[in-house]
Amino acid sequence: MAKRQLKLGAFMRPVSIHTGAWRYPGAVPDANFNYPLLKRLIQKLEAGKFDAFFMADHLAVLNMPVEALKRSHTVTSFEPFTLLSALAASTSHIGLIATGSTTFDEPYHIARRFASLDHISGGRAGWNIVTTSNPDAALNFGLDDHMAHDERYKRAREFFDVVTGLWDSFADDAFVRDVDSGIYVDPDKMHVLDHKGQYLKVRGPLNIARPVQGWPVIVQAGASEPGKQLAAETAEAVFTGGGSLKDAQALYADIKGRMDRLGRNRDHLKILPGAFVVVGDTLDEARDKRALLDSKVHYASAIASLSVGLGVDASGFDPDGPLPPLPETNASKSGQERLVALAEREKLTVRQLAQRVGGYGGLSFVGTPASIADEMEEWLVTEACDGFNVMFPFLPGGLDDFVDKVVPELQRRGIFRTAYEGTTLRENLGLSRPENRFFARGSGKIPQAV
Amino acid sequence: MAKRQLKLGAFMRPVSIHTGAWRYPGAVPDANFNYPLLKRLIQKLEAGKFDAFFMADHLAVLNMPVEALKRSHTVTSFEPFTLLSALAASTSHIGLIATGSTTFDEPYHIARRFASLDHISGGRAGWNIVTTSNPDAALNFGLDDHMAHDERYKRAREFFDVVTGLWDSFADDAFVRDVDSGIYVDPDKMHVLDHKGQYLKVRGPLNIARPVQGWPVIVQAGASEPGKQLAAETAEAVFTGGGSLKDAQALYADIKGRMDRLGRNRDHLKILPGAFVVVGDTLDEARDKRALLDSKVHYASAIASLSVGLGVDASGFDPDGPLPPLPETNASKSGQERLVALAEREKLTVRQLAQRVGGYGGLSFVGTPASIADEMEEWLVTEACDGFNVMFPFLPGGLDDFVDKVVPELQRRGIFRTAYEGTTLRENLGLSRPENRFFARGSGKIPQAV
Repeated sequence: MAKRQLKLGAFMRPVSIHTGAWRYPGAVPDANFNYPLLKRLIQKLEAGKFDAFFMADHLAVLNMPVEALKRSHTVTSFEPFTLLSALAASTSHIGLIATGSTTFDEPYHIARRFASLDHISGGRAGWNIVTTSNPDAALNFGLDDHMAHDERYKRAREFFDVVTGLWDSFADDAFVRDVDSGIYVDPDKMHVLDHKGQYLKVRGPLNIARPVQGWPVIVQAGASEPGKQLAAETAEAVFTGGGSLKDAQALYADIKGRMDRLGRNRDHLKILPGAFVVVGDTLDEARDKRALLDSKVHYASAIASLSVGLGVDASGFDPDGPLPPLPETNASKSGQERLVALAEREKLTVRQLAQRVGGYGGLSFVGTPASIADEMEEWLVTEACDGFNVMFPFLPGGLDDFVDKVVPELQRRGIFRTAYEGTTLRENLGLSRPENRFFARGSGKIPQAV
Repeated sequence: MAKRQLKLGAFMRPVSIHTGAWRYPGAVPDANFNYPLLKRLIQKLEAGKFDAFFMADHLAVLNMPVEALKRSHTVTSFEPFTLLSALAASTSHIGLIATGSTTFDEPYHIARRFASLDHISGGRAGWNIVTTSNPDAALNFGLDDHMAHDERYKRAREFFDVVTGLWDSFADDAFVRDVDSGIYVDPDKMHVLDHKGQYLKVRGPLNIARPVQGWPVIVQAGASEPGKQLAAETAEAVFTGGGSLKDAQALYADIKGRMDRLGRNRDHLKILPGAFVVVGDTLDEARDKRALLDSKVHYASAIASLSVGLGVDASGFDPDGPLPPLPETNASKSGQERLVALAEREKLTVRQLAQRVGGYGGLSFVGTPASIADEMEEWLVTEACDGFNVMFPFLPGGLDDFVDKVVPELQRRGIFRTAYEGTTLRENLGLSRPENRFFARGSGKIPQAV
């Protein structure tokens, strides 16, 4: 039996999640908003056989203190569909995953744009379903009050049903285009959805042929109870937050267990933790790169992040001394303990610890191609993940290092592809093409329950 | 003084407005939905120095009798933003104009997507503001009743103010990206719109830098009273319906007169009638092409269109005989007279007349490169237009004929460019770049009236 292989996404909005990335030597300061650079990066990722290029999205300038806002390299960016469509024209195999909000957009628009991206890219689109938790976004869409969390998830579930129903508006063979008879489309192979639900009323049909993939790949990222349930019911890839190996194994077992109970094949959903990867030719070089990168984080912002992480106001601590003994706190004990242990293990000053947390505090693999491959392989074989959504420390160097050095090491071990399995995102992720819910292949309309 | 020159748009959704286009010998039946072909076509239009590629839009499968629906080659198509963004990546000078609805979309989404397309294309985006009159669209967006015409226009005016205000969220020089100091954006050069109007409530700021063109070019198409007024107040290009030379001159004088009264420079709005162009090496060849094209129109659909045009049920007429004497009718007398005159002038049978009307009944230039250039020049010099939005009879042949044969003739006469004037759509249309309403160039924030 062939070895189980990693699936790799590239988390490209923000291009680097690290707040100091744009100041790193050799980095391109406007990377997040530089189309020629983004085109070069996606072509490099495709050469590295990445499964997908992922654009998160925000529907607002994120609400942050002005001291943080003025230092943020990701406060503005391209809109995902315009960017991914342009990049589709310059690539041939890599998947294109965009975030689409079920709270601040319309299912007819969402269904149409993803279907269109799927056609233009030859079957490479994926929809990251988000419910948008940012209350600032509500204010950009005429709403004073943000919808409650549970309401958002109920609406998301109905929204998913409507969008997938709209994608199934036409049978795969509806467009006959018979020049002699003059028949362009078979009207018996068009379905009017006529959805009337708790939150949405949408007639249909969608004014675009069924997507190449049947449905674009369904992606989720929520970690809450309703988020995990929605993922187990509907998702084909899940982006998770990373964290410890043990936590990741527990989450993996949780979501795949829900799938078992729903009768879904557990291979039909790929769990991809976000992993921040810094590559060096030696372990010391990798650590030095990260230390240099962290040193670019503004101290006042960093110390605010550290204070949140510790549950203690750290602004009075000596920046260049070790972390002092901490007073009792009601905040997360495990979070505080993790940071104290990190500072001791790596002998970090308060400043260095703050800049680590303020730069990027989540799951990180910092080392040589071999040590990074070791860690990734361990996560894969111990069922902590099916792959990773890779975050790069700075651009273009950090991405080039990963593709040029880590990818060949993963390939040498047989845990990453050396050639794309197919031309669609589904084929590369090993996902089946959904049947049309209204039309059986090669025959007529499926009777619907009323 | 240099000769006044034509501006030329290509009306590409539908790729051909003619209902028989997909059945023409040598035509590509799925042209409307064939990305590689559309890429070849836009590159040809760019080689021909066209100002813009225009995608109309519909937010529904248009409601039509099933006999017409099943023969329609434009019932489905790409979504405009995904298509134009992909095409932006394969072109460098031609403008990219998309329709965006003020009735069924949100100003934050519209502002963001057009800004993003403008950045990705290097300043080539245009927004065709439509209020969407199709009641079927309402049913796809949860609404039973379509908004009344006047309400739609009032909302459109406010929507325009919000979108342009969002485009002005950042001063042109807001992004300093100073690596040494760590300052990425100057927060004093960011404006929070905080719009609260009759129809819309939008806080802002937009999460994207100001568009390359300041604002994408503003396009309109409404011919109603409020439509013409909105155009005179806000538009920089207007697509009109064509019709007779005299009607076009009257509309031209009407809209430019409204601009005079508003204190706007009349050169800052280009009036572009839609013109269906069939090119032949001889007049007979052009007429034969059109007759062959018209013969591809389904008779039952065509006779329905003719009945509407005549205001009389024509379904009982002898298809192969001449138009019989018509009974009195309450319907448009001028429309009926125009069709009777056309049938007499060109000696058309009922079938031929019906297929002419059912294929495309609007302004047409059918002839040799010289005769077409004569007509276009007459329209230009007699102030019936500033150029045309050209509609091609079939693809790719009809488009290739125009670029290869008519464009050189227009250039020879000095009434069309031989090289692009600039790299942005504004530069090519001769439109100025709007000032930011909140920030004076090179200085600070403009005080706002409260």
